[in-house]
Order: sequence, then C-alpha cells, then structure tokens
Amino acid sequence: MTREKLSKEAVVEALAGLDGWSLARDGGSIARTFTFRNFSEAFAFMTRVALAAEKMDHHPDWSNVYKTVNVTLNTHDAGGLTALDFELAKTMDRYFGG
Amino acid sequence: MTREKLSKEAVVEALAGLDGWSLARDGGSIARTFTFRNFSEAFAFMTRVALAAEKMDHHPDWSNVYKTVNVTLNTHDAGGLTALDFELAKTMDRYFGG
Repeated sequence: MTREKLSKEAVVEALAGLDGWSLARDGGSIARTFTFRNFSEAFAFMTRVALAAEKMDHHPDWSNVYKTVNVTLNTHDAGGLTALDFELAKTMDRYFGG
Repeated sequence: MTREKLSKEAVVEALAGLDGWSLARDGGSIARTFTFRNFSEAFAFMTRVALAAEKMDHHPDWSNVYKTVNVTLNTHDAGGLTALDFELAKTMDRYFGG
C-alpha cells in the first residue's frame, strides 16, 4: 500500500504537511537541503537517517559536502512518489529539528 | 605542508599509486565510485571514512544511492589537489579492500 504511486493531488496534500521540501518539476521526487554547524553534526544526522531508512527498507539519494546534506526522495519501483517518501521526509525533519 | 597544492607531475605520480581513481578534466580533483552489496555495507563504509576524515580535518564530497558511493576529493583552500586528498583516497581504498 505504502509503495503505491501517489496521485498529484495526494502529493500536493502531503507536501503541504512538510517544511522546506520542494517538488521536482516533473513531480517525480522531493528534495531538501539540510545545513549543520559542521561535518560531525551533518554526518551524525546522516547516521540516524541511515538507520531509519534501513529499517523502512527505503533509502534516500543524498550527497554531503562538509556541513551540508542534500536529499532527494522518490520510490524508484513505483516510478514516482509514495507514502514512504513522505514518511522518510518527516523522519528527517524530526531528526533535524531536535 | 600537506595542504600545499601539488604540481601536475606530483598529481600524476600520486595517481599512479592508486587504483580506480580518475582525475577530473581540469586536474583539480579526483573521483572514484565504490559499489557494495547493499545500503548497509555502503553506509558502514561511509561511517568509517567519516571518522577518518574528521580526524584528518579533511572531508570528501560524496553522494550515496543505495549501494553506490560516489566520491570526489580536492582541497578547496588550496584550489586543487594536495597530499591530503591522496591520503584520504588511500584510506578509502584500504577500507574498501578489507
């Protein structure tokens, strides 16, 4: 169920519940940049997210340059965004927030 | 000393001592892709590298998609490649190899 591609309307609704995430022009992924004080804090965040992602069996596409982490989420098998992407986004926001 | 920009000749020599790394067209960075069996192994590698990078105070630019880790190394302050980049590359190769 959670791996079913969401409709455009459902994506817009789910996105409204998030802060700082942007929808790709093609509607197929969401992205956010997280900025920390230093590398140590950025990688600590990535480590928490990695554990959550592995548990969900749903993994981010992400890059890291020193204190910055760029994340893109989509569900490859579904060819777009699913509930899993928004669940992972919320988890990241929660870890980022505190 | 280790943060001094290397000459083209020194870069070519250092690169010859590495496996699988390629020099950017502009000569300003080196890059390698590491592929693992799954996300867990990819992130375990990243974690070991993160600890080494923090200790060296020299950090990679890298991205991760599931079982693949793409790394680019250069020394921003020096405007090119330094001994630090090749030290970090060797550390990564060692962790990857065993």
